[in-house]
Amino acid sequence: MDLKQSPLAKAFPNLPALPGVAARVARAGYRDWERADISFVTLPEGTAVAGVFTQSACASPEVEAGRYQIGQGRARALVVNAGNANAFTGGQGRAAVDLIKTRIAAHLSCSQDEVFVSSTGVIGEPLPQDKAEAGLAEVTQTQPCTWEDLAAAIGTTDTYNKGAMTTAMVGDTRVTLVGVIKGSGMIAPDMATMLGYIFTDAAVSPVFLQDLLEAANAETYSCITVDGDTSTSDTVLAFATGTTIAPPIESTESAGADAFAAALTDLCRQLAHLVVRDGEGASKFIQIRVSGASDNASARKVGLAVANSPLVKTAIAGEDANWGRVVMAVGKAGEPADRDKLSIAFGGVRVADKGLAVPGYDEAPVATHLKGDTIDLAVDLGIGSGGATVWTCDLTHGYIEINADYRS
Amino acid sequence: MDLKQSPLAKAFPNLPALPGVAARVARAGYRDWERADISFVTLPEGTAVAGVFTQSACASPEVEAGRYQIGQGRARALVVNAGNANAFTGGQGRAAVDLIKTRIAAHLSCSQDEVFVSSTGVIGEPLPQDKAEAGLAEVTQTQPCTWEDLAAAIGTTDTYNKGAMTTAMVGDTRVTLVGVIKGSGMIAPDMATMLGYIFTDAAVSPVFLQDLLEAANAETYSCITVDGDTSTSDTVLAFATGTTIAPPIESTESAGADAFAAALTDLCRQLAHLVVRDGEGASKFIQIRVSGASDNASARKVGLAVANSPLVKTAIAGEDANWGRVVMAVGKAGEPADRDKLSIAFGGVRVADKGLAVPGYDEAPVATHLKGDTIDLAVDLGIGSGGATVWTCDLTHGYIEINADYRS
Repeated sequence: MDLKQSPLAKAFPNLPALPGVAARVARAGYRDWERADISFVTLPEGTAVAGVFTQSACASPEVEAGRYQIGQGRARALVVNAGNANAFTGGQGRAAVDLIKTRIAAHLSCSQDEVFVSSTGVIGEPLPQDKAEAGLAEVTQTQPCTWEDLAAAIGTTDTYNKGAMTTAMVGDTRVTLVGVIKGSGMIAPDMATMLGYIFTDAAVSPVFLQDLLEAANAETYSCITVDGDTSTSDTVLAFATGTTIAPPIESTESAGADAFAAALTDLCRQLAHLVVRDGEGASKFIQIRVSGASDNASARKVGLAVANSPLVKTAIAGEDANWGRVVMAVGKAGEPADRDKLSIAFGGVRVADKGLAVPGYDEAPVATHLKGDTIDLAVDLGIGSGGATVWTCDLTHGYIEINADYRS
Repeated sequence: MDLKQSPLAKAFPNLPALPGVAARVARAGYRDWERADISFVTLPEGTAVAGVFTQSACASPEVEAGRYQIGQGRARALVVNAGNANAFTGGQGRAAVDLIKTRIAAHLSCSQDEVFVSSTGVIGEPLPQDKAEAGLAEVTQTQPCTWEDLAAAIGTTDTYNKGAMTTAMVGDTRVTLVGVIKGSGMIAPDMATMLGYIFTDAAVSPVFLQDLLEAANAETYSCITVDGDTSTSDTVLAFATGTTIAPPIESTESAGADAFAAALTDLCRQLAHLVVRDGEGASKFIQIRVSGASDNASARKVGLAVANSPLVKTAIAGEDANWGRVVMAVGKAGEPADRDKLSIAFGGVRVADKGLAVPGYDEAPVATHLKGDTIDLAVDLGIGSGGATVWTCDLTHGYIEINADYRS
């Protein structure tokens, strides 16, 4: 299936090299395609690692292994297979992950627990061990590649390569954070899955890095949705090499901890937005800001209920300021809300206020706003001080074309 | 907007008259259309009533009033307005409901609490009191109509009229249950809402009727979904006139209680299926049977997660036995599940078993089954004895056409 590039695509940015971090890609041939589909990233000794994973009860063996390895806190390598998710493959799937860890641990003379593996692609077919072995043999011998090569090699149905960066001052030293990500919703032919990898030269203890990544995740990756579906393999890993001369960050008391935390969250938000912008069939990027909720968690649930509503998403695709559908979605969220206190604004123009349509609101700026490709929808529940922002895309014929018209 | 009749439509059945129950319809002109849009049903004195309502936190004033009136347990009349949902309309909306109850209570010399009102249509515009009053003046003076006339007058974006019936033996007497329903998902232009009305000549105490309706609702209306969205006005009311000579049903110990309960559930299931069959853009009716769950409630949640998954719905629209998407949907349900015990069957043919694809399963009967318009999907979680069946429809270009291409 040839996918047209998303109209919301962003150009791949210029990303700096990080000392001691080398990415390599090669062709394992997991699918019948002419492109690199196995990626191998080496990390310096002592690199700290943290990770967040899918909530799915049917997670892949890669995710199960990753959850365990995170507890050890150290990483030397990352291997990503694209084209086969190795999910729902029982013992054979686990054996393939073990094989990769064993081979790379031997190659680098490190512990198997320091080798992280991700796979993305079709579900239900065990990752072919012969192709993995041949791919590893090649990728470990090849020359390092660019960040964009890595972003391309981990992609599946992505319509563009996704990467981002930021920096933070830690003590007197500027540290760098670089990230690549793939994902476009759970997309046909079962090749979606969000896989994100963050690399920084900062020195961060594994336990604190895990805390920071979970906090960043809560307001970034956990606040995006394309179609409400959840992959069996979603994974974001953060690797901190510590090659900088900046002082180590070990707790909120450490110098630069706040700046690093803010930078990590900013990078996660950038990467999360890139995934939404590649949502299947997306023509509009939608930001939903919920305020006045009973608490932040409640605000997020309301936001996701609105973001996942097919009726809200199709209304925005149709450039229709249909706040009735927003009321409906707020109502079904199952969170505290009071119809008579609810206000709704599109593009900053209030269209419903305190339980009533705003009589004669100015429709022209609202119509202009809805014609654009970035939509701002604000929902004020008016009952508390909880807030959250979530992001999604609209629901168009493109989604149906990609997911129904295709035969696997 | 002209809507083509759903390819899954059922012909309106021949429904018997019930002594003392008279339906009338007239044109209030709630919208600019040439059709009856106000309905008025009179019921004999002493009629028991029960009701189930939307879980929406932003329910309409009709729903708020109905919830209160149910507690009184008696009904003499039903008024249904089509074309305006009167939802999210604050005090003006409440005043319109009060006006209708006052007028009809005076007309019938009954209590206002015995007059039930429903409205369906656009959200955010108060029901115009002048049109309601003129409509009431006409509808109370007109001749009684057929059940199908009633079904047509309560409809909005429905593409066909929906009714069903069944009977039950209570003591030595056969009692009759008749129902009409409207709804087709939350549909543009905000005119969906499920409104269902059940009429029986059985004598049932209000409290027990409420118990029976809630039990029936749990395995019928609560187990259907078109797009996962929830109206602000969903309502099902059951009226038991007691005009039969069959003995009254007051508890599970009463003669015929089991038979009546089974008949009520059967009628609710028939009516619920009619709504699914009119789902926007539906081309296939999908039954999802979940077994082996930790308990029945968990099975229902898993079933609804599968039924609401856009990826499962588009796969079935594409006639693709894509069990990987079913695994994904099971995984995201947040209910106990074990990948290595999960089995999935389409049309009775197991395609995945105990966490692995069934090697070389017979694809021909599966492909044939998926080409049909009634799809059976069975999910066995293999961890307990909980079960549930839910129903939905597929997700097609028709849904996008109806919900995005239309401008309100």
